[in-house]
Amino acid sequence: MFQAMLREVVEGTDGAIAGLLMGFDGITVDSYARPDGTLGSDSLEALGSEYSQILGQIKQAAQALELGEAREVSVSAENMTTVIRLLNDSYFIALAMKPNGNFGKGRYLLRVNAPKLVESLT
Amino acid sequence: MFQAMLREVVEGTDGAIAGLLMGFDGITVDSYARPDGTLGSDSLEALGSEYSQILGQIKQAAQALELGEAREVSVSAENMTTVIRLLNDSYFIALAMKPNGNFGKGRYLLRVNAPKLVESLT
Repeated sequence: MFQAMLREVVEGTDGAIAGLLMGFDGITVDSYARPDGTLGSDSLEALGSEYSQILGQIKQAAQALELGEAREVSVSAENMTTVIRLLNDSYFIALAMKPNGNFGKGRYLLRVNAPKLVESLT
Repeated sequence: MFQAMLREVVEGTDGAIAGLLMGFDGITVDSYARPDGTLGSDSLEALGSEYSQILGQIKQAAQALELGEAREVSVSAENMTTVIRLLNDSYFIALAMKPNGNFGKGRYLLRVNAPKLVESLT
């Protein structure tokens, strides 16, 4: 069920490479990589693991600054854009895409699928 | 010159509250807050300071993962969205806006103004 949704998000976003559902402890729940993509499962795990630590700090900063709960984080680097939706206190979903991928569509698909994921995870 | 550009970005983005040019060491170069905004200069400094630390870690992660240089980071929280453009090894520009602010326009204005800022900072 998780993988089907990850696949829907990845295949529905032009330029998307892979999707990942992960805990803030860095442990993967499920993932989906486009078969012709450049991101192997090891790289995807490494990406998620690095981001899980950064997200923990962003959550803390948002609370310290009284900005409320952090909901979405995106990082654009030269070779990849990553959009992350924080689902609840324990899990997040990340979408990796090429720098010229459809950022807006990726964000949208993560946002509309988030409530279903949250429901399934609790 | 820096403040004029920050003002242009803030006033040109619907829902924007403040703009900040800061070093990764957490020291502010210049800032502009919309007069009717809710973000005082102390809060803006605190925001920039928290984010400067997080950005340092994102830069490192992007390099460790061979994603190339990090260029843009955005964080959406319940009460505020922040879009950050990394200018060079030393400086970044941040735009704070209401959650319903024009995210796309803010990103665009940061991106087109970045080269001029980089030129002035070096």
